Amino acid sequence: MKIVVLKFGGTSVGTIKKIKKVAEIITDYKKKNYKVIVVSSAMSGVTNELIKKSKEISNNFCDTEHDVLVSSGEQVACSLIAGRLIHKGYKSRSWLSWQVPILTTGAYKNSRINKINKNKIIKFLDQGGIPIITGFQGINNENRITTIGRGGSDASAIMVAKFFKAKRCIIYTDVEGVYTTDPNKLKKAKKIRIISYEEMLEMASLGAKVMQPVSIQDARLNRIDIEVKSSFKKKSGTLITKRSNIFNNKIVTGISSTQNDSKVSLIGVKDKPGVAAAIFKPLSKNLINVDMVVQNISANGQETDLTFTIKTEDLNKTKKIIHHNNSINYRKLLFEKGVSKISIIGVGMITTPGVTFRMFQTLGNKKINIKVISTSEIKISVLIDKKDTQKALIALHKEFKLSQKK
Amino acid sequence: MKIVVLKFGGTSVGTIKKIKKVAEIITDYKKKNYKVIVVSSAMSGVTNELIKKSKEISNNFCDTEHDVLVSSGEQVACSLIAGRLIHKGYKSRSWLSWQVPILTTGAYKNSRINKINKNKIIKFLDQGGIPIITGFQGINNENRITTIGRGGSDASAIMVAKFFKAKRCIIYTDVEGVYTTDPNKLKKAKKIRIISYEEMLEMASLGAKVMQPVSIQDARLNRIDIEVKSSFKKKSGTLITKRSNIFNNKIVTGISSTQNDSKVSLIGVKDKPGVAAAIFKPLSKNLINVDMVVQNISANGQETDLTFTIKTEDLNKTKKIIHHNNSINYRKLLFEKGVSKISIIGVGMITTPGVTFRMFQTLGNKKINIKVISTSEIKISVLIDKKDTQKALIALHKEFKLSQKK
Repeated sequence: MKIVVLKFGGTSVGTIKKIKKVAEIITDYKKKNYKVIVVSSAMSGVTNELIKKSKEISNNFCDTEHDVLVSSGEQVACSLIAGRLIHKGYKSRSWLSWQVPILTTGAYKNSRINKINKNKIIKFLDQGGIPIITGFQGINNENRITTIGRGGSDASAIMVAKFFKAKRCIIYTDVEGVYTTDPNKLKKAKKIRIISYEEMLEMASLGAKVMQPVSIQDARLNRIDIEVKSSFKKKSGTLITKRSNIFNNKIVTGISSTQNDSKVSLIGVKDKPGVAAAIFKPLSKNLINVDMVVQNISANGQETDLTFTIKTEDLNKTKKIIHHNNSINYRKLLFEKGVSKISIIGVGMITTPGVTFRMFQTLGNKKINIKVISTSEIKISVLIDKKDTQKALIALHKEFKLSQKK
Repeated sequence: MKIVVLKFGGTSVGTIKKIKKVAEIITDYKKKNYKVIVVSSAMSGVTNELIKKSKEISNNFCDTEHDVLVSSGEQVACSLIAGRLIHKGYKSRSWLSWQVPILTTGAYKNSRINKINKNKIIKFLDQGGIPIITGFQGINNENRITTIGRGGSDASAIMVAKFFKAKRCIIYTDVEGVYTTDPNKLKKAKKIRIISYEEMLEMASLGAKVMQPVSIQDARLNRIDIEVKSSFKKKSGTLITKRSNIFNNKIVTGISSTQNDSKVSLIGVKDKPGVAAAIFKPLSKNLINVDMVVQNISANGQETDLTFTIKTEDLNKTKKIIHHNNSINYRKLLFEKGVSKISIIGVGMITTPGVTFRMFQTLGNKKINIKVISTSEIKISVLIDKKDTQKALIALHKEFKLSQKK
């Protein structure tokens, strides 16, 4: 009998009605003779409410107690799911991370799962039980509750899938899957049926927001097939898998775009080792997230131009930091608000010549000026004027035939 | 250094502001060089909210998951208290019942603490730490969360005091202590400075509602001094202790009264062994709480009259049950709505003749008719017409000089 891991996000268990629906999804898999392991987040809103309380207690609420506090949310959700399954006549129970146990390493608020003891869960599965495991948490070697920093309950689900050698990990969420581009921005966006880890990583970090990159990376390293689907609609979602499982001949899988970005250019920077670090270190220290970084080859071997993008909300802070940074020399500093990054993503482009050209031509035909270009093996990103974003999305979506049925 | 156990009830930790106040109470004891162990309830309202959710999930929500669900409330309260103490510069941490661990026996929802492992807490105290322990819960020998049925967090605190040989267990609540009678009924009611376990037991079961009788009984058996006081006002409360610690010469310590009672009399019952059981068994099975029971000596050795009181809300159900009870014979069945039980309580009455007479005379002078009388070593209860309750309270409170400074 194959093991399947079902993970439910906060919105999927956000109300009692939704928890009842989740119980139906779970029993559907059970009826299909799967061994089902469930991982759940807290009911939506609960974690934020708890964090709000902690901030009222102290503007510097300690990390150890933070983890005790917020981990209670998953405990509530899991007991309610298990209670519903028992009500429906199934054998089920909640498994709190210390009961499994799920062992973590690293700092409080930012731990990572490094071991899951399987014995008790395997025994419970063999008895026909459906274990409901608390996501987003574990215990460390001091027997204290820790929470998973990045990826949260998704990361928990993927590690559970890894340790139990699950056939598949299904992430139930409030979207139907991964789209060729943000459906809120482009109505013609289509749901992607199958996508590689690598493409998904590029989509995620560029704003697809369905899953945290760290969780996709965990899945990729452990070769776990992930399906992202909606807990509200009975439709197939998006399968995230290894490249060799994908047989379609799409060149471009999806298009992502950002908004509210600002461009910062340092002109005439002394081109010597360590200069980039000198620029970015204080930004990183101040929690300013630097996205696209482009540096041109220095013509005279002495100077170079360096451009990067940040969120516009961080612009004033960034200006101050650069002005006060005595360890760098440059001739000129340029800022531009209201830029947008458009990226096309697809593993097919490695083997297909001319994709870059087609992208630039498409934008050129629409009189959209390209400010900066950056490429990787499976992604081409350009920086354009924010006002052109929608026009660019429509044109590129059409050019790469993303609205067509796959 | 002496150990003191501080227990905070739901209303004492009901808001963030109140939790901050609680942290001040705790640090006051710490400054006085006590080793402080804290036991906390969930923030008021939280447990009920969780139970409401469980009922929406299932009208028969299973007991095991019920305990997982509701125990999360104390986890939240304890982490917030510990977080506040850490914010104030103290060494503190939350101790969840499985971390201590606190071991229970008995059924889910209705367990009792039978062991507390002291080592880790003792070590933490020795390091100057203030442990904040979750009340109302423990784990059983299957490593699953259980909740304490009767007494809840009070029972937890008293068991903690017992196992750690605490000098005193202080129950912080929303009242200032135990009163000579209900202050809502009689403005002249005075706070009792010191009271014996036995008197408190009589007060509690008769409606004083400050603590559950089971917790007082636990304290009595383990000879733990309890102080009940308000977490909102800096005033001394009521000390509940053994009789030999009490030196005052009050005859009567307090007066309690019930309301909305009904009287049921079975006249001419066959006086043979097992007849009382035959009457009360079906009532107990239907969760009808029988309070005062009085049976007169049978004059002819054949028949007897039996009277008992119940809550008026149970009257119709009680009538039906008795009518359908074929295992008992009686000549007449009488019901009376709207009666009230007045009791005077005091260990002093054992050694003081004439207390009974003084009570009856006081009521007689006020033209209050006594319907039924029942006495124990430290308590005299009478059943009167409900409309006379207030008049009786005032008269008895005055007769036994309860408004005087003690």
